[in-house]
Amino acid sequence: MMQPKVGVIMGSTSDWPTMQKACDVLAELEIPYEAKVVSAHRTPDEMFRYAETAAERGIEVIVAGAGGAAHLPGMVAAKTIVPVIGVPIKTSTLNGIDSLLSIVQMPGGVPVATVAIGDAGAINAGLLAAEMLGIQDKRLRERLIERRERIRERVIKESELT
Amino acid sequence: MMQPKVGVIMGSTSDWPTMQKACDVLAELEIPYEAKVVSAHRTPDEMFRYAETAAERGIEVIVAGAGGAAHLPGMVAAKTIVPVIGVPIKTSTLNGIDSLLSIVQMPGGVPVATVAIGDAGAINAGLLAAEMLGIQDKRLRERLIERRERIRERVIKESELT
Amino acid sequence: MMQPKVGVIMGSTSDWPTMQKACDVLAELEIPYEAKVVSAHRTPDEMFRYAETAAERGIEVIVAGAGGAAHLPGMVAAKTIVPVIGVPIKTSTLNGIDSLLSIVQMPGGVPVATVAIGDAGAINAGLLAAEMLGIQDKRLRERLIERRERIRERVIKESELT
Amino acid sequence: MMQPKVGVIMGSTSDWPTMQKACDVLAELEIPYEAKVVSAHRTPDEMFRYAETAAERGIEVIVAGAGGAAHLPGMVAAKTIVPVIGVPIKTSTLNGIDSLLSIVQMPGGVPVATVAIGDAGAINAGLLAAEMLGIQDKRLRERLIERRERIRERVIKESELT
Amino acid sequence: MMQPKVGVIMGSTSDWPTMQKACDVLAELEIPYEAKVVSAHRTPDEMFRYAETAAERGIEVIVAGAGGAAHLPGMVAAKTIVPVIGVPIKTSTLNGIDSLLSIVQMPGGVPVATVAIGDAGAINAGLLAAEMLGIQDKRLRERLIERRERIRERVIKESELT
Amino acid sequence: MMQPKVGVIMGSTSDWPTMQKACDVLAELEIPYEAKVVSAHRTPDEMFRYAETAAERGIEVIVAGAGGAAHLPGMVAAKTIVPVIGVPIKTSTLNGIDSLLSIVQMPGGVPVATVAIGDAGAINAGLLAAEMLGIQDKRLRERLIERRERIRERVIKESELT
Amino acid sequence: MMQPKVGVIMGSTSDWPTMQKACDVLAELEIPYEAKVVSAHRTPDEMFRYAETAAERGIEVIVAGAGGAAHLPGMVAAKTIVPVIGVPIKTSTLNGIDSLLSIVQMPGGVPVATVAIGDAGAINAGLLAAEMLGIQDKRLRERLIERRERIRERVIKESELT
Amino acid sequence: MMQPKVGVIMGSTSDWPTMQKACDVLAELEIPYEAKVVSAHRTPDEMFRYAETAAERGIEVIVAGAGGAAHLPGMVAAKTIVPVIGVPIKTSTLNGIDSLLSIVQMPGGVPVATVAIGDAGAINAGLLAAEMLGIQDKRLRERLIERRERIRERVIKESELT
Repeated sequence: MMQPKVGVIMGSTSDWPTMQKACDVLAELEIPYEAKVVSAHRTPDEMFRYAETAAERGIEVIVAGAGGAAHLPGMVAAKTIVPVIGVPIKTSTLNGIDSLLSIVQMPGGVPVATVAIGDAGAINAGLLAAEMLGIQDKRLRERLIERRERIRERVIKESELT
Repeated sequence: MMQPKVGVIMGSTSDWPTMQKACDVLAELEIPYEAKVVSAHRTPDEMFRYAETAAERGIEVIVAGAGGAAHLPGMVAAKTIVPVIGVPIKTSTLNGIDSLLSIVQMPGGVPVATVAIGDAGAINAGLLAAEMLGIQDKRLRERLIERRERIRERVIKESELT
Repeated sequence: MMQPKVGVIMGSTSDWPTMQKACDVLAELEIPYEAKVVSAHRTPDEMFRYAETAAERGIEVIVAGAGGAAHLPGMVAAKTIVPVIGVPIKTSTLNGIDSLLSIVQMPGGVPVATVAIGDAGAINAGLLAAEMLGIQDKRLRERLIERRERIRERVIKESELT
Repeated sequence: MMQPKVGVIMGSTSDWPTMQKACDVLAELEIPYEAKVVSAHRTPDEMFRYAETAAERGIEVIVAGAGGAAHLPGMVAAKTIVPVIGVPIKTSTLNGIDSLLSIVQMPGGVPVATVAIGDAGAINAGLLAAEMLGIQDKRLRERLIERRERIRERVIKESELT
Repeated sequence: MMQPKVGVIMGSTSDWPTMQKACDVLAELEIPYEAKVVSAHRTPDEMFRYAETAAERGIEVIVAGAGGAAHLPGMVAAKTIVPVIGVPIKTSTLNGIDSLLSIVQMPGGVPVATVAIGDAGAINAGLLAAEMLGIQDKRLRERLIERRERIRERVIKESELT
Repeated sequence: MMQPKVGVIMGSTSDWPTMQKACDVLAELEIPYEAKVVSAHRTPDEMFRYAETAAERGIEVIVAGAGGAAHLPGMVAAKTIVPVIGVPIKTSTLNGIDSLLSIVQMPGGVPVATVAIGDAGAINAGLLAAEMLGIQDKRLRERLIERRERIRERVIKESELT
Repeated sequence: MMQPKVGVIMGSTSDWPTMQKACDVLAELEIPYEAKVVSAHRTPDEMFRYAETAAERGIEVIVAGAGGAAHLPGMVAAKTIVPVIGVPIKTSTLNGIDSLLSIVQMPGGVPVATVAIGDAGAINAGLLAAEMLGIQDKRLRERLIERRERIRERVIKESELT
Repeated sequence: MMQPKVGVIMGSTSDWPTMQKACDVLAELEIPYEAKVVSAHRTPDEMFRYAETAAERGIEVIVAGAGGAAHLPGMVAAKTIVPVIGVPIKTSTLNGIDSLLSIVQMPGGVPVATVAIGDAGAINAGLLAAEMLGIQDKRLRERLIERRERIRERVIKESELT
């Protein structure tokens, strides 16, 4: 298997159905990735180790999903300068508005690139990682452009309703 | 100076005017404490070290204040079984509802005892720490009861408005 | 049966499925507890009596769950200096944001240690009570550390997703 | 002075500037009232005594203002069947949405007649008390009708803007 | 049939399952009532006529339920000095927070006695109407006290959980 | 003066500083208008008369501003098929989110064209009225296009910041 | 088929079940319309072309539905002076409050006539379009008045509940 | 002057005080940038042209700030695969929660990397752009690491409060 360039992590196995959407996009765009549960609250030392060693292991972008008091993306971002994308997981009580605010309202100094709550956010996390990697990868940019074009054509084809 | 029993920490010096209210209560109740800036995002390793060594240094309760994507209380709680009290600091944009949700919505397994947003919360953090220590300290319990009685009497004295 | 150290109370029998999660944690950690419905609005005098006599009956921590205009934790806290942990019950209309604000936004002087809305909060209420009791109980602290370690190991074992 | 028919109570002297608006309306409508600070959290026993003795002292309506975790109106309502009007006081952090939800979201069985947050609510609490008393008092109803008519005429007089 | 004293109105037949809870309480307390659909938006003239003629028809309290942009309680209140109780109906999109704010945030001058969103609110609307009528009706007050006592006893009987 | 085509109404003189922004736009676009205080709650009959007679008086669009439990736009819309534009006025407690929900969440059958909270909304209410009138008025459409072009040019002229 | 006067567009085929409600109203009122998927994010150029050519193609009102970060109504409005009605689609995470704020909070200069979230909003979008076209079409106004009258009669017929 | 690598755009000159914080960070990190007002609503064609030509002009990351119905970041993202960072500007009515939801809740397919509301967000937008460019620029990564280290040292130096 190829050396992963994107690390997809999440706080719990229950986040996997959402985060898999990010992995599907990465696979579709031929970007090698790894996927792991790394819990800010239940395995804090492993989380720090993951963040500290990500760069040297060749990870160029981290995608981190978490719900509720969602500390994983921000804490990983505090330990690395590899760009971190945060995916707010929908919660059963507050629908993910808690996850969103816990991830996006980072103080000046430690950025987290936050995307939408839930599945749409996970898909976009995969695409955003691809766009970041695409800055220096013309072939990847072409695949991204083709993907958009395919979607555009599908929308146009199905656009007539009356 | 006496060995501190309560560790009062906060994410930024700008949280000090609020968190000082917790310290004032501790001082009034003759509970030795220490106060420090420990930033989850800017000094993550120091934060972990603080949490890891708190118990052995004699800290019996931790009071942690933070604002916005407020990760300090929850991350400290993830690294120690010393009870952690979280104080949501009022923020300039969302008034502290972001701080509150980031602190209170912890996943099962790692509790944070959350109090009200802002000054009232900081005062109550000091009192809650005292109540926890009071479980085994009859004299402290008496001071808490006296404090309540004094406040009760003041309210009664000023209660007639017409 | 042993003298209970933790009093688990709730506003209604409909809160029991949630609050039972707190009791399960206490049982697992071998902490004697009692569980009762005490309604702030339907049995106010019984509530006051419960709060007034808790300390002399040997109760060292109170866990109180309530939903909607959730007054039980705060009113019990107003009548005792035994630490009170408040669990916001999820509501059918506002999902528990009403319960959360009614419990957490206490005025300075009477603290309630608030945890997350719903099941996660109930679990953490049990753990927080244990942490408070653990301040003077080394064996309990060890059980808490072991519990965390077991959870940590389980997370690590299930962490590989790809 | 005449025997008061309306008891205006509030959780803190800081609520007085708002609650005075309720008293002004009662005075204007010639309804005898009393105004007192009765704190649910700082003077819980006095609060219960107030609620228990209100009816026998001739109080026919209670107006209760409180902010934050606003338990006063609901707890008084739990101890009497005299109708209780709740005024949510505006708070410095959450603008009174916490007060509103703490007061209005009462469980079935114990009603609180909730009005708007802040000054408008206090004015309307006075008017609502008058409407309740007006059910059996034709003269009071006439004063209420005249008051409305005066306001209506003032609005009409000032209604042309261009 | 007896002359109704309470008019229970609602904006739509879809509000009836909720508003029926108010009627059940009135029936239980032997208070004669009428129940009608009166829509602020679809039958505005009928609504005004209802409000204008309520007092002369012997209606002493109006209970009005409405959802979304819930204008019925406030507009009826604008046309009568009979006390109006507003019940915010739960909505499919915003869960009734829109109904609540549309009803409770009345400007100074025209009060609406607002209760909780949904069923609990409807029950309490019936009880609040009874409390208002009870100001001058000792027998009704006794029925209210007995009802509370019955509920209190039921809670106490079912209160032991362990 | 010309026969007004747009009726600008508002619930209170305190809404005038905001609603004047709508009038300024109408004046700038040479659309004759009238501006009046018409209060849903304080002058309900005048409001109904205004709505009922608007069409026959030549009013082709109504702009209605209101705050809090903002019933004016929806109630006017219930009494006329002249299109009604609702402007949510910013409130001192809830910043206008109450006004917005009270205006926009109308039930199916009675539309209100809602714009943004506050000044931006008032400006856009004037423009929206112009767009509606422009459907059959080529000269007005040209004035609208010119206005946009002028603004576009100003933005472009001031667009370089570095 | 007749030249469409109203263009009903939406961001996704998944919005069709809601937006069809707008079309049903237009059909019922005999207003020729077209319905199309035009996505702000997936077919931005087609969206601009749609907006640019709408007027010359005889479109007199545009109804645009979108969910989440709902940019379609506002962006179409930025490209035409044909009046644009925005329908906030209910979302699975935030119930459509995100859609509502994204549509209604337009800056001064570019209005969008916003209606309620979901089905009620779509129905009202159809009616609002009709009211706008009705300004110069007496027959359409009559159909609108008749529609209201029919609904009014139905409400009255079903209004007795007891 | 060097060819800009980051395009900093915003909807209005009033956003400049916030967005300047992003530019300050870019300047400090020696990243060439350009700053421009590009309005989604007032200059939509210029916005599309900006987005379409960004890549060919050498722009590798776009930072876009906007407030209210904040469509700029999402619409630019719809027209380019250059990564777009969205900064929600604080608004006078809803404090920026409208800006945040309008930016972050993008549908699957078109990502926007969203940061915190206001100044903290603008600072982090600059840093996030740097992290993205740093993926292929070792020297830039070193400057980022040094910047963090300097901040860490400053926090530690000022951390003792008692």
